[in-house]
Amino acid sequence: MKERFFAYVDERQRRYIDQLGEAVAIPSVSSQLDTHLPDIQKMMEYAANFIQRLGGQWELRDNPDGTSERPLPPLLLGHFPVDPRKKTVCVYGHLDVQPAHIDDGWDSEPFVLTERDGKLFGRGSTDDKGPALSWLWVIEAHKELGIDLPVNIKILYEGMEEYGSEGLFTFIRDEHDKFLGDVDFFCISDNYWIGKSKPCLTYGLRGLAYFELIVQGCEQDLHSGNMGGAVHEAMTDLIRLMGTLVDSQGRILIEGVMDDVKPVTPEEEAFYDPIEFDVESFKEEAKVKSISNKLLHGNKKDLLMARWRFPTLSLHGIEGAFSGSGAKTVIPAKVKGKFSMRLVPDQDPVRIEQVVRAHIAREFEKLNSPNKVELNMLHGAKSWLSSPDHPNYAAAAAAIQTVFQTTPDYTREGGSIPITTAFEEATGMNALLLPIGACDDMAHSQNEKYNITNLMNGIKVLGMYLHELGKIGG
Amino acid sequence: MKERFFAYVDERQRRYIDQLGEAVAIPSVSSQLDTHLPDIQKMMEYAANFIQRLGGQWELRDNPDGTSERPLPPLLLGHFPVDPRKKTVCVYGHLDVQPAHIDDGWDSEPFVLTERDGKLFGRGSTDDKGPALSWLWVIEAHKELGIDLPVNIKILYEGMEEYGSEGLFTFIRDEHDKFLGDVDFFCISDNYWIGKSKPCLTYGLRGLAYFELIVQGCEQDLHSGNMGGAVHEAMTDLIRLMGTLVDSQGRILIEGVMDDVKPVTPEEEAFYDPIEFDVESFKEEAKVKSISNKLLHGNKKDLLMARWRFPTLSLHGIEGAFSGSGAKTVIPAKVKGKFSMRLVPDQDPVRIEQVVRAHIAREFEKLNSPNKVELNMLHGAKSWLSSPDHPNYAAAAAAIQTVFQTTPDYTREGGSIPITTAFEEATGMNALLLPIGACDDMAHSQNEKYNITNLMNGIKVLGMYLHELGKIGG
Ligand SMILES: [Zn+2]
Ligand SMILES: [Zn+2]
Ligand SMILES: [Zn+2]
Ligand SMILES: [Zn+2]
Repeated sequence: MKERFFAYVDERQRRYIDQLGEAVAIPSVSSQLDTHLPDIQKMMEYAANFIQRLGGQWELRDNPDGTSERPLPPLLLGHFPVDPRKKTVCVYGHLDVQPAHIDDGWDSEPFVLTERDGKLFGRGSTDDKGPALSWLWVIEAHKELGIDLPVNIKILYEGMEEYGSEGLFTFIRDEHDKFLGDVDFFCISDNYWIGKSKPCLTYGLRGLAYFELIVQGCEQDLHSGNMGGAVHEAMTDLIRLMGTLVDSQGRILIEGVMDDVKPVTPEEEAFYDPIEFDVESFKEEAKVKSISNKLLHGNKKDLLMARWRFPTLSLHGIEGAFSGSGAKTVIPAKVKGKFSMRLVPDQDPVRIEQVVRAHIAREFEKLNSPNKVELNMLHGAKSWLSSPDHPNYAAAAAAIQTVFQTTPDYTREGGSIPITTAFEEATGMNALLLPIGACDDMAHSQNEKYNITNLMNGIKVLGMYLHELGKIGG
Repeated sequence: MKERFFAYVDERQRRYIDQLGEAVAIPSVSSQLDTHLPDIQKMMEYAANFIQRLGGQWELRDNPDGTSERPLPPLLLGHFPVDPRKKTVCVYGHLDVQPAHIDDGWDSEPFVLTERDGKLFGRGSTDDKGPALSWLWVIEAHKELGIDLPVNIKILYEGMEEYGSEGLFTFIRDEHDKFLGDVDFFCISDNYWIGKSKPCLTYGLRGLAYFELIVQGCEQDLHSGNMGGAVHEAMTDLIRLMGTLVDSQGRILIEGVMDDVKPVTPEEEAFYDPIEFDVESFKEEAKVKSISNKLLHGNKKDLLMARWRFPTLSLHGIEGAFSGSGAKTVIPAKVKGKFSMRLVPDQDPVRIEQVVRAHIAREFEKLNSPNKVELNMLHGAKSWLSSPDHPNYAAAAAAIQTVFQTTPDYTREGGSIPITTAFEEATGMNALLLPIGACDDMAHSQNEKYNITNLMNGIKVLGMYLHELGKIGG
């Protein structure tokens, strides 16, 4: 089967590119619903029609968070039932895109898929229209070749991912025992390789604890000429408190914050050595080249661990203080410092909040200030850690071995992909992050692209993954 | 002469109130030139016509900083020459006002002068139309009573004071040896008593050194999920540096900053005891009542000295960081911390800049950060200190003694009144700050008012001040 499938896919390259071009041409920008809601609608229908042609069941489900004042794009539910005794995989993707305009610095029109040097440039090419269409091309190949699908396939595509996935989490909660009730595995193809040429599987994501630290010194803003020397200024306290959180080497200075951080196991450490990752070229991505040309960590393992498996703390800014250009001699009355921590296993946001609260109380006590202080945790989300040993991951690794003749890198990411945890928590089933785009695809940036090799190998990997899943008994 | 003058003034109270009402009715808001430039023009002409009626020379001088794209209100120059052998006083005032709208919380229409309980409510009543008209009423009284003016009087009224006095400083520089060439004394009546009932003379103002501390860690903003743990974050360094400047008790922590601060002399200290100033009611003005109900200093002398004659440092805010509401997980690339110091005699902004620069260099060294740091002084202005013993001050004190049967309080202010230094530096002549409004007049706020007693006694004080100046020989 593999040879016929691969040969069929190879033959259809031009057609895949044309179809991806049709999808990219629809500017389904979810952050601009005012003007682009009809485009997202059109894009969802484009994929629904594809499923229709493939003989699948489908439904454009009204967005559960949409209202008449704020209509939202529908969710696309697809279903290719094969045999109830077989496993069921639910594949997730999104058909909306980030905004783009040629004046932002694109070398070609962002909504015209443009081929240059084996790369397909266009908004949404890699994020996430290419991967989302790939599942349908896999099914199409099976249909045309007369090969039975090895598992039942459910498709869940949304149109709001780039704007907070509005409605999706409500759907998952409501449908955990309905549309999602018989799902055995989830597969999400919406992140990227850590390198340019070697595939990877992503098994961990950091969580988040976002804080707002409020200090109030007076009822309204004052003038520093008249009142400087008279009042306990809120900014003085806030800046000093924020200064106790993290040092310039990125070390978190909050007592107890590292208590629950899992030690690095030898098995885990072994994942890092083979990873295709170049510290020097990462400096480009980190935008430090022309400033210091220095990162917090000079070697691959320390740097990746610092981004993936250790907590970090960033100071984001201050609300309520002077933030304009030029000079203003204001004593701000009430200021809100914003900072957040990226959390790792087994850090619980609830405990992190306690630890941060205790730290702030201790440090504020030292200031001997009569001002009012308040700490709010605005968001708390646990990190996510899967196991590369899980059959879902093993299936993907085997598929990659077949297509690339290599073991994938096992990677984590520093940010969160909330859908991952949402699927697992709602259903108890494993979610696999199976990236098929490369690290330099520039999702969200100018000149987003999708390599033709990634497009072609991606379809093959997704197809082989389904067959590996089909081998799983139970 | 005194009795006739006082009796004449007392008789005309109703007419003064009516005329002040005419002036207040013209909404000469200089921060809104788009809509109010004609009103300022009208207000300047109103005063020019008054001078004309009094037989003075006058000119509406084109604003030297005005352009055809940005026309500015003219300056009003008046001249009542008496005798070239007599002294010449130049009186300064402004005829523009702060914005005001009844919806901001006024109890009556701001541009309709409204009498309640002996108070005249209206925008500009005390700042500065009341005092500015008072000089003209003094001259009017002399004219009607047939009393010779005791000194030559020059009038310099502007229409941009509430918006940076645009054009005025150019005028002063250009005219120091022309319009201002024969001036012996300046008198500025545009600040307020420290108390509600006791007059004062203001002999000191603090200077300013405004800094921008820039830290850059990367070329563009990053995302804390992806890059937290990878880069030296600019905010971490900036917050830590800002945290080394001042403590929560208002103590400046910069080495060398106090070196040039004059010690308090016994003569100076003696000024503080009689000052009419109530710490408790000042808490209202400082807007701390409902927060901590605490000031940095609990007793009158320490509090006034902290505001007037010791330097202070305020942290104003950060440009380039996240300053909105809610949560944003940005790692800002380049951030600019804004802080300023109020300077006192003999602190030189040039030396203060050196001291601050050395401090930042030392503290940044400790951070061991590869980020780029830069310090700019955006504004530097020396403090101003006059002598209560100067004949100009002595004349005003004698006038106050005559009208109020009391020695004035000798006060300073924490902020700057740039015109004061500008006059003195351009001409070498003494400038007197002679407030006639009360501390609770609410200039710049809702329900700005001018007490009828201050209006009436103000005219008398200004008149007697001219006669005291007339006694000065030479
Ligand atoms: Zn995506
Ligand atoms: Zn995206
Ligand atoms: Zn004023
Ligand atoms: Zn004013």
